[in-house]
Amino acid sequence: MSQKPTLSRRTFLTAASLAGLAAAQAMLQPLQAQTPDAPTVPEDPTKVPGAPPSAYGQRSSFEQAQRLAGSSSSLTPLQDLHGIVTPASLHFERHHNGVPLIDPARHRLLIHGLVERPMIFTMDELKRFPAVSRLAFIECSGNSAGEWHEPGGQTAQQTQGLISSSEWTGVLLAIVLREVGMKPDATWMLAEGADAAAMTRSIPLAPALEEALLCYAQNGEALRPEQGYPLRLLIPGWEGNVCIKWLRRLKLGAAPFMTREETSHYTDLMPNGTARQFTLVMEAKSVITSPSGGQQIRPGFVEIRGLAWSGRGRVTQVEVSTDGGETWRKAQLQKPVLAKCHTRFRFPWRWNGQEAILQSRCADETGYVQPSRQALVAVRGLHSIYHNNAIQSWKVSRDGAVHNVHV
Amino acid sequence: MSQKPTLSRRTFLTAASLAGLAAAQAMLQPLQAQTPDAPTVPEDPTKVPGAPPSAYGQRSSFEQAQRLAGSSSSLTPLQDLHGIVTPASLHFERHHNGVPLIDPARHRLLIHGLVERPMIFTMDELKRFPAVSRLAFIECSGNSAGEWHEPGGQTAQQTQGLISSSEWTGVLLAIVLREVGMKPDATWMLAEGADAAAMTRSIPLAPALEEALLCYAQNGEALRPEQGYPLRLLIPGWEGNVCIKWLRRLKLGAAPFMTREETSHYTDLMPNGTARQFTLVMEAKSVITSPSGGQQIRPGFVEIRGLAWSGRGRVTQVEVSTDGGETWRKAQLQKPVLAKCHTRFRFPWRWNGQEAILQSRCADETGYVQPSRQALVAVRGLHSIYHNNAIQSWKVSRDGAVHNVHV
Repeated sequence: MSQKPTLSRRTFLTAASLAGLAAAQAMLQPLQAQTPDAPTVPEDPTKVPGAPPSAYGQRSSFEQAQRLAGSSSSLTPLQDLHGIVTPASLHFERHHNGVPLIDPARHRLLIHGLVERPMIFTMDELKRFPAVSRLAFIECSGNSAGEWHEPGGQTAQQTQGLISSSEWTGVLLAIVLREVGMKPDATWMLAEGADAAAMTRSIPLAPALEEALLCYAQNGEALRPEQGYPLRLLIPGWEGNVCIKWLRRLKLGAAPFMTREETSHYTDLMPNGTARQFTLVMEAKSVITSPSGGQQIRPGFVEIRGLAWSGRGRVTQVEVSTDGGETWRKAQLQKPVLAKCHTRFRFPWRWNGQEAILQSRCADETGYVQPSRQALVAVRGLHSIYHNNAIQSWKVSRDGAVHNVHV
Repeated sequence: MSQKPTLSRRTFLTAASLAGLAAAQAMLQPLQAQTPDAPTVPEDPTKVPGAPPSAYGQRSSFEQAQRLAGSSSSLTPLQDLHGIVTPASLHFERHHNGVPLIDPARHRLLIHGLVERPMIFTMDELKRFPAVSRLAFIECSGNSAGEWHEPGGQTAQQTQGLISSSEWTGVLLAIVLREVGMKPDATWMLAEGADAAAMTRSIPLAPALEEALLCYAQNGEALRPEQGYPLRLLIPGWEGNVCIKWLRRLKLGAAPFMTREETSHYTDLMPNGTARQFTLVMEAKSVITSPSGGQQIRPGFVEIRGLAWSGRGRVTQVEVSTDGGETWRKAQLQKPVLAKCHTRFRFPWRWNGQEAILQSRCADETGYVQPSRQALVAVRGLHSIYHNNAIQSWKVSRDGAVHNVHV
């Protein structure tokens, strides 16, 4: 079915960006050539019987969205995603000594300390408890760490890619702790992973008991290895670092345990030289994912798309500015809008070919409004690495190229 | 971290099913031995640095849930799933001549017939339209086709596995048809796929214009090849067969096109010899996925878990019976409960070791209640293949084995 020149074609949606696809394809060819069994695309797919059903599907070889992987973390390609669910294969990673290989049949969870009945649970035992599922984001508190001083990353993946949302399933921490019996003086909990870092964090019990989950499933199937297989702690809305992966031990105590990861790291050095500690909740934040850094747009209709989230509850509003914050207009929020989960926002825009600065700012149900970079720095200073939830600015040049800027 | 016998252990959650896991492991060993680079599970994962981050993650080699693949379809392993999202890799398949290999840069959608301006769209052009995301199920109208006469499948995957739910993203059909301009007499639409079956179905326009999407994304990333990559029609709540995959053509007309797939197939032969045609909406249905056929339970606490859905809107209630329909009690519905999407239900049960018949029945916002098999057969007879939404019964024997039965 080739194009018929007699048919009219859309005018405001031109085919110019096919050149971009063609370029991507050109880059793909050498890779495919190296693969011995690279598939040959038929000229007319209706003339060739297709492939049979399969036991476990894979994505198309034409799709190349990938995590940007460093030595201890990888970033989600936010600019390539749709909707609010992050595919497990593209969920960001942050490890402190790699992804351990764990046999679920041999994995155990020990709960001890200030409890009436110390217990060890198998995975099978944990799965027999009443289950809960919920869609929730996990964000590394170091997300956007490179954006404090100067524009750091080029793309949304590089500037904000340490966040993802999944549907998580597990048993409520509160239910399991009821089994072991919390002693009255238990106010903190140490959570420990079975990775080579034996990662540990202290968690205040009272707020964690409200929603914390011991998770064994993600987006319908078993938790992925890089997300803590076979068991991870999830505290919706809190920094990813306390959502201990490969969870093997919970110890209840009467005070924080002051582990390495909450003393030398994961604290916020303030202008007066003191450090904020246990800043666990991830404040409201948003980012425009399209158009975003590294992308190229054409004059005419452009839907501005992005993600917003808040560790304190539901996102209630997202505003978009196309003039660097001079004026703001409300974006449309895609339903369902879920607490402590990605919210997809959209805003119709017509680009006139002139320079533009695109920004989004969100508010949550507590009334909190995402701050500008200047407002955040005025309070927090520039010594901090973590908890940068400032408004992100993307500059559109006259040639349609989009770049990360500070305004 | 080995078990310490001095620690108390749960009593009502015994470790008996570890034997089952061990057996599964034993089956896994030969497979692993055949793989040259099979990973060796360390005795203590905290003593071995883990694997580095990766560009595109894979599931654990210990996880083996898979679609049951035949020559033209594959079934989702409902009994292995959690929550409401089906991972794309496990979404059921139904093909009429296999999965075509399509280059998205060369794929086109032609819209013609009773339109003012026939047009051809590239994928890039379709993606520039305003986007919509929604979680929705797709169910093959042949789901449970083998359950009309006698109990057919052994597992929930075999009896109800032609259903899955995903978050779909695309452009509303109504928006694209506004571009081409519908002529006043356009009441039906032919949709055609680019597969080797050149699959076609007729679709009544008025109801389709409400919610139908031209989808290019599933669960955050590009649509999978077996779900229609790069473009599929999605009409939430309607039988999967009309959600044409590899969509390449829409033709508007003034009457149904009477294609092979709506004359010789996908009609419901009734007791009086006539056939119902264009029975497009999938009525309310539910199934208990755990405990379900092929599983084994132990006395004590058992959470009954399952899925319910309705093509007419939201599920409003799910009831569970453990005595073959004598008595019914309300199950808990996991929020969010979304229209035309999987709804996860849960019901706490304590199995006393006696024979039991487990059933679920759901109702939707129209007031419709899922029928018993007898009630359905009384109306529809036994000549029909499609649209079997009868209540599923699972028998628990005294030994804890679960089987598919008719009651």
